Amino acid sequence: MSFPQIPKIEYKGPESTDPLSYRFYNKSEIIMGKTMEEWCRFSLCSWHTFRGKGADPFGFPTMKRHFDDESDSMENAKRRIDAMFEMLMKLDIGYYTFHDRDVSPEGSTLEESNKMLDEIVDYLAEKQKKTGVKLLWATQNLFSHPRYMNGGATNPDATTFAYACTQAKKVIEINHKLGGENVVYWGGREGYQSVLNTDVKREMDHMAAFFRMCRDYRDKIGSTAQLLIEPKPREPTKHQYDYDAQTVIGFLCTYGLQGDFKVNIEPNHTTLAGHDYEHDILVASKLGFLGSIDCNSGDPLLGWDTDMFCTDIKKTTLVMKIVIEQGGLHAGGLNFDCKVRRESTEDRDLFIGHIGGIDNFARGLRNAAKIIQDNVMDNMVKERYATFDEGFGKTVEEGTATLESAAAFAVKAGEPEQKSGRQEEYEMILNRYV
Amino acid sequence: MSFPQIPKIEYKGPESTDPLSYRFYNKSEIIMGKTMEEWCRFSLCSWHTFRGKGADPFGFPTMKRHFDDESDSMENAKRRIDAMFEMLMKLDIGYYTFHDRDVSPEGSTLEESNKMLDEIVDYLAEKQKKTGVKLLWATQNLFSHPRYMNGGATNPDATTFAYACTQAKKVIEINHKLGGENVVYWGGREGYQSVLNTDVKREMDHMAAFFRMCRDYRDKIGSTAQLLIEPKPREPTKHQYDYDAQTVIGFLCTYGLQGDFKVNIEPNHTTLAGHDYEHDILVASKLGFLGSIDCNSGDPLLGWDTDMFCTDIKKTTLVMKIVIEQGGLHAGGLNFDCKVRRESTEDRDLFIGHIGGIDNFARGLRNAAKIIQDNVMDNMVKERYATFDEGFGKTVEEGTATLESAAAFAVKAGEPEQKSGRQEEYEMILNRYV
Amino acid sequence: MSFPQIPKIEYKGPESTDPLSYRFYNKSEIIMGKTMEEWCRFSLCSWHTFRGKGADPFGFPTMKRHFDDESDSMENAKRRIDAMFEMLMKLDIGYYTFHDRDVSPEGSTLEESNKMLDEIVDYLAEKQKKTGVKLLWATQNLFSHPRYMNGGATNPDATTFAYACTQAKKVIEINHKLGGENVVYWGGREGYQSVLNTDVKREMDHMAAFFRMCRDYRDKIGSTAQLLIEPKPREPTKHQYDYDAQTVIGFLCTYGLQGDFKVNIEPNHTTLAGHDYEHDILVASKLGFLGSIDCNSGDPLLGWDTDMFCTDIKKTTLVMKIVIEQGGLHAGGLNFDCKVRRESTEDRDLFIGHIGGIDNFARGLRNAAKIIQDNVMDNMVKERYATFDEGFGKTVEEGTATLESAAAFAVKAGEPEQKSGRQEEYEMILNRYV
Amino acid sequence: MSFPQIPKIEYKGPESTDPLSYRFYNKSEIIMGKTMEEWCRFSLCSWHTFRGKGADPFGFPTMKRHFDDESDSMENAKRRIDAMFEMLMKLDIGYYTFHDRDVSPEGSTLEESNKMLDEIVDYLAEKQKKTGVKLLWATQNLFSHPRYMNGGATNPDATTFAYACTQAKKVIEINHKLGGENVVYWGGREGYQSVLNTDVKREMDHMAAFFRMCRDYRDKIGSTAQLLIEPKPREPTKHQYDYDAQTVIGFLCTYGLQGDFKVNIEPNHTTLAGHDYEHDILVASKLGFLGSIDCNSGDPLLGWDTDMFCTDIKKTTLVMKIVIEQGGLHAGGLNFDCKVRRESTEDRDLFIGHIGGIDNFARGLRNAAKIIQDNVMDNMVKERYATFDEGFGKTVEEGTATLESAAAFAVKAGEPEQKSGRQEEYEMILNRYV
Repeated sequence: MSFPQIPKIEYKGPESTDPLSYRFYNKSEIIMGKTMEEWCRFSLCSWHTFRGKGADPFGFPTMKRHFDDESDSMENAKRRIDAMFEMLMKLDIGYYTFHDRDVSPEGSTLEESNKMLDEIVDYLAEKQKKTGVKLLWATQNLFSHPRYMNGGATNPDATTFAYACTQAKKVIEINHKLGGENVVYWGGREGYQSVLNTDVKREMDHMAAFFRMCRDYRDKIGSTAQLLIEPKPREPTKHQYDYDAQTVIGFLCTYGLQGDFKVNIEPNHTTLAGHDYEHDILVASKLGFLGSIDCNSGDPLLGWDTDMFCTDIKKTTLVMKIVIEQGGLHAGGLNFDCKVRRESTEDRDLFIGHIGGIDNFARGLRNAAKIIQDNVMDNMVKERYATFDEGFGKTVEEGTATLESAAAFAVKAGEPEQKSGRQEEYEMILNRYV
Repeated sequence: MSFPQIPKIEYKGPESTDPLSYRFYNKSEIIMGKTMEEWCRFSLCSWHTFRGKGADPFGFPTMKRHFDDESDSMENAKRRIDAMFEMLMKLDIGYYTFHDRDVSPEGSTLEESNKMLDEIVDYLAEKQKKTGVKLLWATQNLFSHPRYMNGGATNPDATTFAYACTQAKKVIEINHKLGGENVVYWGGREGYQSVLNTDVKREMDHMAAFFRMCRDYRDKIGSTAQLLIEPKPREPTKHQYDYDAQTVIGFLCTYGLQGDFKVNIEPNHTTLAGHDYEHDILVASKLGFLGSIDCNSGDPLLGWDTDMFCTDIKKTTLVMKIVIEQGGLHAGGLNFDCKVRRESTEDRDLFIGHIGGIDNFARGLRNAAKIIQDNVMDNMVKERYATFDEGFGKTVEEGTATLESAAAFAVKAGEPEQKSGRQEEYEMILNRYV
Repeated sequence: MSFPQIPKIEYKGPESTDPLSYRFYNKSEIIMGKTMEEWCRFSLCSWHTFRGKGADPFGFPTMKRHFDDESDSMENAKRRIDAMFEMLMKLDIGYYTFHDRDVSPEGSTLEESNKMLDEIVDYLAEKQKKTGVKLLWATQNLFSHPRYMNGGATNPDATTFAYACTQAKKVIEINHKLGGENVVYWGGREGYQSVLNTDVKREMDHMAAFFRMCRDYRDKIGSTAQLLIEPKPREPTKHQYDYDAQTVIGFLCTYGLQGDFKVNIEPNHTTLAGHDYEHDILVASKLGFLGSIDCNSGDPLLGWDTDMFCTDIKKTTLVMKIVIEQGGLHAGGLNFDCKVRRESTEDRDLFIGHIGGIDNFARGLRNAAKIIQDNVMDNMVKERYATFDEGFGKTVEEGTATLESAAAFAVKAGEPEQKSGRQEEYEMILNRYV
Repeated sequence: MSFPQIPKIEYKGPESTDPLSYRFYNKSEIIMGKTMEEWCRFSLCSWHTFRGKGADPFGFPTMKRHFDDESDSMENAKRRIDAMFEMLMKLDIGYYTFHDRDVSPEGSTLEESNKMLDEIVDYLAEKQKKTGVKLLWATQNLFSHPRYMNGGATNPDATTFAYACTQAKKVIEINHKLGGENVVYWGGREGYQSVLNTDVKREMDHMAAFFRMCRDYRDKIGSTAQLLIEPKPREPTKHQYDYDAQTVIGFLCTYGLQGDFKVNIEPNHTTLAGHDYEHDILVASKLGFLGSIDCNSGDPLLGWDTDMFCTDIKKTTLVMKIVIEQGGLHAGGLNFDCKVRRESTEDRDLFIGHIGGIDNFARGLRNAAKIIQDNVMDNMVKERYATFDEGFGKTVEEGTATLESAAAFAVKAGEPEQKSGRQEEYEMILNRYV
C-alpha cells in the first residue's frame, strides 16, 4: 500500500472533528432526487496529486512520495497509478483525469512515447475494471516540453503543429478506449508573449483548424466523448486566446464550432481573468456551454494560478446551485485540479486537502438545495423581471418590439418607478444558508 | 471668445519648446500616401472636455470654466458648444463627439428633453456648417440618470428598457441629421453588481434585442452610420456584458449581429480588462471589427478608468501601425475620451493635454510609417510563419489537413527544430524607432 | 420620525428570517467575560450613511432621504443629526463618528464655518446627553474641498497647509468637548498624482510636522483622545504616503512619533494595498498599534474602495479573534465606514445593510470565542514555534545568539527535520467554526 | 570560448542597427563630471544569466548552454564562471553578483558545501584579478532548498534558523575576501502563506535578531561591506515582511537598525507592490536608504516577477535622474537581475537582452543629465514649494509652527489661491527628452 497510515474516509456527520472523515459528503444520500455522488461526480487529477512535488519558481521540490522513485521508468509510472487508485478507493470517489505525459513517460520519438502510453492505457483499463472507477477525461500536454515553447496548435512552425496534432489524435483514441466521457483542450501556450513577433490572425485560424481536425477525428473513430475547451487568461503565456468563457464561446461561434465544443471551467482561471469565482460557470451554463468544472480556487491577491482546494462555502454553494439548476453536470464532473501547498509535505496533507475539497462542495450542495427548495431568493429574482412576462416587455422577448413601439410605450408610461436592487438583503438571505 | 489667451496651435517641428505648439502633428503633411489629418481623424469629446469639472468620489469640482455658468439653461448649453467649436478651430482638428445629455439638458419629460435636443441639434448643424467640423459619432447616455441605475437595455424593468430605446431612437435620428459617421453604444450599466439578484441570460437576450431594434431603425430611416459597441470591463457596473473586444465580437456572433456592428475601442478599458494597451485594437482589427478608437490611456496601477491623454510613444506607435495596416480608420477616428487631471485647473492645461495627445499620436504615426517602410520587423514575423506557406502547413490553412495527415507528417519530420522567439531583439528594434 | 416604517431592531436568534432583526448580536450577552456590546463597540458613520446619496463617477445620486432636503441649511444639518440618532436608537448601538464637514456646512470663511460647527456641536452634545450615545471619533475633511486638491498637510502651498491645520485644531477642540475617544487622520490627498511635479521628501517632512503640531495641541488643551492615522494606498491620490499599516508605523518611527499615534484600520484599504483582509489589523495589533477598525469590506476584483458591509464570516471571525487576543478595542470600536449599493435606494436597505454588518461581526465574535476556548489551532501554532522556547532558539529571542553560536549549533544539529506547515488542516479546522 | 560567435560589444552610436553594438553606452564618455561607467556601475548576475534555463511552472527548461553540462560538478561550476567572465569582458562591464548556491554546489553537509564554496571563491578571486572585474555583492540563497520552505530567518524551527545563519556567516566572509562592496538580504520565504499557522510577531522579532547578528559579525571580521535588504511583496511567499521600501525602512526604524542597513531596490518588486516603477527608488533615495538597484522590469498586467530587461526609456530616465541627484550609486550599482524570455533560447538572445538593458539605462542617463542641465522641470518644482522657503511656511520646516500659529496665519490669509498642478505640462516636457 502506498498510504498505509490512511484509513478509508467515511461520513461521520457535521460534528466530527476527525480530519480524516467526511462531515458533509454522504455519497449515497439523496438530495433533490439524486445521490450526492451523482450530483458531484468528484474526480482526482493525476498531475498535481501524483506528479506535483512542491517545486515553485524559487524553490526545489519539497515532497517525497514513497510510491515514486522519481525515475522515468514504466514501473514507477505504474506505481503512481497504483497509488492513485488506492487514493480513489480510500476517498471513495469515482472518477479520475490525466494528461498523456502525466501517466506515461515521454520517449525519444513519438512512436516510442505512444508505445509506452499504450502499455499504460492497458494498465489503467485493468485498474478501472477492478475498481469500477471511470475516466472523466483525458487531455494532451502541449505545454511542458520545450518543443511547445512557442505554442502547440498556434506554433509558428508547422512541424510542431503537426506534432501537437499527433498527440491530440492519440488522446482521442485512448480516451475512447478507456471510456473517457470527455476530452479536454487547455491551450496554455496558445497565445502570445509579445505582439511584436506574432501574427495573431494566423494563429487563431490555426487554432480553429486544430479544433476542427479533432472534432472530425473523434467522429470518425466513433467516439462520443464531449469535447471541452478550458479557458485561461494569462499564464503561462502572457495572453492566451482562450481568455475566459465568453471569449471561448465567441471564438467557437466565430469559427462555426459552437455545436461541437463546450467549456471546462476552472474558477481560479476565472478570477485571474477578473471575474467573480462563479462567473464563468454561470455564464457558460446559461448559454448552454458548461461541460465540466475543475473545482479549485485561487487567491485574489496573487496574480497566478494557485490551484488551491476551495475553502469558501459561499462559493461552493453558488456553484452547486448552478449545477442543480442545469440538472447536473451530465458527462462532466467536479475535478480536483488542486494541489496542497508546497509546505504541506506529508501524505496526510494530500488526503486532508481532498477531504476538505470534497466536504466543502458537499456542504455547498446541501446549502444550494435548501436555497432552491425554500425558493425565497429565486422568487425575488423572478418578480424582479416580471414586467417582461407581459405587455410591451413580452414583445421584446418575442422579438417583435421596435424602437418605435418602445418609444410609444415609454412616452405613455412616463418616468419609470424606482425599484431598489436590494443587494444587501439578498446577501443577508444567502448568509442564512452558509 | 472663451479662450482668449490661447492662440491657434501651429506646427513648429520637433525642436519647439513652446507648449502651445505642435512638434509632430503637421496636418497636411503626406505620410504613406495620406495626409496626417486623414490618418488620424482627431476628435474632441464634449463630456470630459466641456462638462467635466474635476469632481471625484472624494472631492468636489475644482474647475471653473468661464464659458459655463453651471446652469441647466439652453443659453449655457450653447455657450459650451461655442467653446467647443472655438477649441476645435484653435486645435485645428475636424471632428467631435457627444452624448445626448452632454450637449442638451434633460427635461422633466421625454418630450421636453427631445424638444430641447432638437434646438441644440439645429445649433450644432449651423456650427458644423460654419466651421467645416464634422460629427464623428453621437451616443446616448443610458447610465447617469438614476432611472438607469439597474441598467438601460438590461434593466429588469421593461418601462426603463423602453425609455432607453427612446433615447437610442432619438440619437439615431439626430446623428443622421448631423451627418454623424457612427453611432456608439457603451453599456456602462449593462451588467450586474451581484449575481444574486440577476438573471444574466434574460439580460443578455434583452441587450441583443435592443441592438437588433437599433439596427433595424437605422436601416429604416436610411442612415448608413456605422454602429459601434464600446467594450468595458468593470466600471461602473461590477461586471459588464461587453467586457472586452473578443467578448463583444463573440456576443455579436452568438446573436447573429456580426454583420451589423463593429467596436469602438478605448485602450483604458482594454488594460482594465487585463490586456495590453494595443490588444483589443489589434484583435478587433485582425478580425475585421475595428470601427473607431477612443485614444486615451490608463494607469496600470490604478483599478479604474483614469481617461488620461496617452503619453507613451511606444503605445501610440503600435496603435498607428495597426491603423496603417488596415488602411486607415475609415468612418472611425481617434477620439479624445480623455480628461485633464483634477489638479490641472486652468484652460491652458486643457489645451496642453490635447496638444500632447495629438502630438503623441502624430509621433506614433511617423514612427509606425518608418517601421513599415523599413520592413525589418514585419519581414522577421513573415519568415517566422513561413512553414505554413507550403506543404503540410498550407493544407492546414486550406482546411484539408486531418489529424491523420498531421500524424503522418509529424512521424516523418521527427522532432521539430527549436527556433528562438527573439523577443528581446524585436524589442530592441522597436526601441530604435521611438 | 425619519424612519417611521422601521421598528427597533431586536435579537431574535439564529433561526430568525426577519431581515429587521438580529440573529447573532445580543448586546448584553456575555462572551469571554465581556458583553457583546463591549467587545464590538459598534459605531455609525455620518458620511456614507447620512450624506451619501448614491452618486458615482458615471451617475447622479439615486437616493432620496426624507429627512434631507439637500440644502446647506442648519435646519437640514440638524434634521440629518436627528435621523442619525434615531437610527442609533433603533439599531441599539452606542457610538457614532463624523467629519467636520459632514455634520455642519462649510461657510464662506473659516470663521463662519467654525461658528456653524459650534452650533452643531452643541446640538450633538445635547443629543448625546439625551440618548447616552457617545462619540467614537471625529475627523477633519481635508480632501473634498477644491482647496485641498493638491493635499492638506502635504500641499505645496503653505497657506493651504495652514488652512488644514486650522480645521485640525478645531476638530481636536470639538472632539474634546464632545468626549470623543479618538481623533482620526485620514490623508486622502496626502501623496502624489505624479512624481514629476512633487518633492516627496519635503511633503513627508511637512506631514510629520503636521502630526507633531496636532499632538502638541491635543496635549496642550488637556485632551486625552487617542490619535489615529488611517492608512490607504491609492485613492483618491495615486500614491498616498500612508500606504498601509506598516508604512504608517514605519513613518511614525522614522519621525519619532511612535508613542503618540496608533492606526485606524479599514480592511478595504488593506486589500487595496495588496494584503489579506485581516493583515493590517493583525500586524498593527501585534506591533501594539491597533487603535480602531473601520469594519467594511471591498471587492477583490475591483480596484477601488467599495466600502461594502462585510458579509464574509470567515473574515469577521479572524478579525474578532485578533480583537479578543488584544483584550478588546479599548478606546477604539467597529465603525461602519460602509455604504449600501447605489441601487439600494430605500431606507429599509440602509437598515438591512447595517443589521447585516452588525450580525456578521457578532457571528464572528461568537466563532472567535469558540476557537480560542477550544484552543485547538492556537495550540498547534504554539507547538510549531516550540524550539524557540529553549536552548539555542531561546538565545535568539533573548538577543544573545551570534552568527558564530548559530553556526556551531547548526553544524552539530545537522540537516533540520522537515515539518509540514499543514495549511489545509488549519483551514479545515477553521471551516468547522464558520 | 563559451560564446565564440559573439564579438566584443562596442559603442557605435545611435544610428547603429547592429544588435551586437551599443548605441548609447559609451563607457568612458563624461556625463556631468563622471564617466558613464562610473554612473552606471553595471553588473551581471550569476543566477538568471548562468543558471536560468527557461523552466516555468508549466514547462521544462528550454535552453541548452554549451558551457554547462547540467551536472553538479565543480568542473561545471568553473566552466560557468569562465563563461560569466567571458561575457563580462565582451560586454565590457565591471561588476558581477552571486548567491552562494549559484556559483558552487550544495554538498551533503554544511561543511562540505562550505569546502566547495571556498574552492570556488579562490577561483573567482583569481578571475577577478585577471580581468579587473569586481564583486558588487554576494548573497545567500535561503529560499530554494526544501529546508527553507517555511522560511530562513523566520522559520518556526530554530535549527533551520541556525542553518540560515550559518550560510549568512559564510557569505559575509567570502564577500569580504572577494572585496564585495555590499551584502544583500532578500527574504523570499520570510513571511507567511497563511496567517492561521503563523505567529507574525515572533517571526518579525527573529528576522530582526538575524539582521543584528549579521551586522555584528560583519563588524567583527572587519568588513565594511554595505548591508542591503531587498524588498519584495508577494512571491514566492504570499506575504513577505519586506513588502516594499517604506515597509523595510519602517522595520529598520522599529528595531533600531536604521543606521546599519540600506535597501537594494528591484523595480519589478516595486510594481508588484502596487507602486510606480521608480517609486521605491525615489523614496529610498530621498530618505537616505538607497543602496543599490536591480535594474529589471516587470509586466504590469502579470502578477509575478517577470524579471525582464527594462525597455521603457521614460523609466530609465527617471531612475537615472534620481541616481544623479544623489551623486551616484556609491557602493551600489545597476545589477541585471533580468532574464531573457523562455522562448529566447540562443546565446545571442542572452547578449541582446543585456545590450538592450545597458543601452536603455545609458540612454536614460543621457536624457536625465539633459533634463537636469536644462533645469526646466526642477525649477518648476522648486517654485511650486516656494511658500515654504519663507514666513509661516519656513516655521513649519524649522519645527516652530503650532496649530495656533497656523490658525492665526490662515485666518489672516483667507482662502488660498488655486494653483494648477500642471501635470500634463510636466509630462509634455518629459516627452521632449525621451
